[in-house]
Amino acid sequence: MDAGIEILEVGPRDGLQIDPVILPTDTKIELISRLLAAGLKRIEVASFVNPRKVPQMADAEQVLAGLTRPEGVHFTGLVLNRRGFDRAAAAGCNEIGMVVVASDTFSVRNQGVSTEESILGWLGVARAAQEQGIRAQVTISAAFGCPFEGEVPLARVLEIATRCAEVEPFEICFADTIGVAVPSQVTELLTQARARLPGTRLRCHFHNTRNTGIANAWAAVECGVSALDASVGGIGGCPFAPAATGNIATEDLIYMLDRSGVATGVSLAGLIETTKWLQRQLGREAPGMLHKAGDFPKRALQ
Amino acid sequence: MDAGIEILEVGPRDGLQIDPVILPTDTKIELISRLLAAGLKRIEVASFVNPRKVPQMADAEQVLAGLTRPEGVHFTGLVLNRRGFDRAAAAGCNEIGMVVVASDTFSVRNQGVSTEESILGWLGVARAAQEQGIRAQVTISAAFGCPFEGEVPLARVLEIATRCAEVEPFEICFADTIGVAVPSQVTELLTQARARLPGTRLRCHFHNTRNTGIANAWAAVECGVSALDASVGGIGGCPFAPAATGNIATEDLIYMLDRSGVATGVSLAGLIETTKWLQRQLGREAPGMLHKAGDFPKRALQ
Repeated sequence: MDAGIEILEVGPRDGLQIDPVILPTDTKIELISRLLAAGLKRIEVASFVNPRKVPQMADAEQVLAGLTRPEGVHFTGLVLNRRGFDRAAAAGCNEIGMVVVASDTFSVRNQGVSTEESILGWLGVARAAQEQGIRAQVTISAAFGCPFEGEVPLARVLEIATRCAEVEPFEICFADTIGVAVPSQVTELLTQARARLPGTRLRCHFHNTRNTGIANAWAAVECGVSALDASVGGIGGCPFAPAATGNIATEDLIYMLDRSGVATGVSLAGLIETTKWLQRQLGREAPGMLHKAGDFPKRALQ
Repeated sequence: MDAGIEILEVGPRDGLQIDPVILPTDTKIELISRLLAAGLKRIEVASFVNPRKVPQMADAEQVLAGLTRPEGVHFTGLVLNRRGFDRAAAAGCNEIGMVVVASDTFSVRNQGVSTEESILGWLGVARAAQEQGIRAQVTISAAFGCPFEGEVPLARVLEIATRCAEVEPFEICFADTIGVAVPSQVTELLTQARARLPGTRLRCHFHNTRNTGIANAWAAVECGVSALDASVGGIGGCPFAPAATGNIATEDLIYMLDRSGVATGVSLAGLIETTKWLQRQLGREAPGMLHKAGDFPKRALQ
C-alpha cells in the first residue's frame, strides 16, 4: 500500500453541523488551523445552506474569510444548489461537494427533491464549478442502506454514480450515511464501481454506528480508493438516524493506516491534541478512541 | 464465505473477570443460559484460578454445577496450571484453555513465569487433558504487541505457536490482549501461521481499544480462521492496560458476519436482549454498539 490515502477531514462541517453547541466563528477557525497544523490538506470547512435550517453553518462566509490557505490545501464547501455554489465560490472555496441521496424517500425527506432532481442539480452545479476552475465532487449518500427503504440495490447506486460521472467530476464518494455497511459490501460496491468508472477517483464516507466503520475503511483501502472521509474525534451524525454516532474518527483511522504502512502525511499526535482541545470547546467526550487509548508503541510527538 | 465461523463467547469469564460488580452465581448461570438460547455453542464459562486474585471467579465450580449442557455444546474453563486443570476437569468442563504470553515481561507480570516456563506448563496440561478426553486449546496473548516491550516480533509469535503445537492442540488462538493490532498485521500473522502449522485450527481474540477490533476480526475471517472470540456487550478488559476497553462485542461481530453472509448460527436479536439484561445486572452501559443502534434492516425476532 505504498500509494497512500488522502484524508478529507469533515469535522468542521459534517462533524459540527447538527451539534447542539454552536461554536463561535473564531473557534471554528482555530479548529481548522489546528487540523492544518496536524498535516491535513483537504478539509470540509463549511456548508452553504439555509442558516435557519442549519444554524451552526450560518457563519460559513466569515469562517472562510478568517482562514489562511497554505499552498496545496483544499477547502471544501458543501452546497445543495446553484445558490449555495455561488456563495461557496464567492467565499473562496477551491472545492465544492454536493450530495445525491441514493434512495428517493431519504432524498425527499433530507433535501426536498427526488434522486433524479438532485442528479440534475449536481450536473448543473458541476459544470458551473468547472467553468470557474473550482473542483467539484459528489457524494452518493445512503449508498449502503436507507433508514426508510432498507436495502438500496447496488445496481441503483452504480447507475446513479454513472449519471453523476457524466460531467467528469473530480471524484465520486459513496457514503454509508446511517452506518449500516459491512466490509464485504464495501468491497463489492467499489469493485463494481471501479469496473464501471475506470477513470474516476473514488472516495468513501463511513459512520461507526454499528462498529463497522474502521473495518469498512480498511476494505476501501484494499480496494484502492483515493480518499476517505473522517472527522476529528469522530464527531457528527445524521439527524435522520436516531442512534446515529459520528463519522469514523480521523485519529482512529490514522492509527490503523500508520501501523499498516499506508502514508497519509497526517500527525496522529496532532490529531489527538486537537480532539482533546475540541472536547473542551464542546463540553463533552468525543466518540473516537485513540485520544483515550493513546498511540502504540509510544512515539515522540510528530 | 460459505464455511461459516464459530464464535467462542468469552463474556462470562474474560468479560466479567475484572468487573467491579461481583455477580451472584445464579446470575452467571442465567447469563450462560441466555447465551445458549441465543445459539452460542461454545462458551468460556469460568476460570479456575486463585479466588483471592480473581474474586469474580471464586464460584467457578458452583457455576458449572448449575449449568445444563445441551448436546454439542462446549463449556470452556481457563486454567493456568495443572491444579487449575484438575479443578476444571472435576467441575465438568469439556474444553480447557491456557494462556502463553508472547513477551517475557508481560508473562512475568501477568502470570509470574517466563514465556518458556508457561509453554512447558501448557504442554503438560495439554497432555493431561488429552488423556482424559478433554479438548485443550492455547491462547498466545500479546501476540500483536506488549504494553511493556512494545512490538512483539512476528517470528517470536510463530516460534511460540510452533512449540505449543507439539502436543497437537485442538486449536491455537492469537490474542490482541491490549487492543493494538491492525488488519494488515492480522493478515500477515495468520498467513504465516497457516503456512507454518497447516493442520492446526486457528482462532483470534481481539479487543476494540483502538477501534480496530471489528476490522481485525474481518481480516481474520478473510484469512480463514476457524473461530473468533467475542464477549456479549463487549464487556471485559485487561487489568494491565490502563485505557483498555473490552473484547469485541459478540452482537457487533454477528451483525457484520450476518450481513456478509458468514454463517454463525447465533441470533442477533437474542444477543441484543442478553446485553440489555446484562446491563441491568452490571448497572452500567455496555460498550457494544448494536444494542443501541439496532439491526438493519429490521428483522423479525429470530
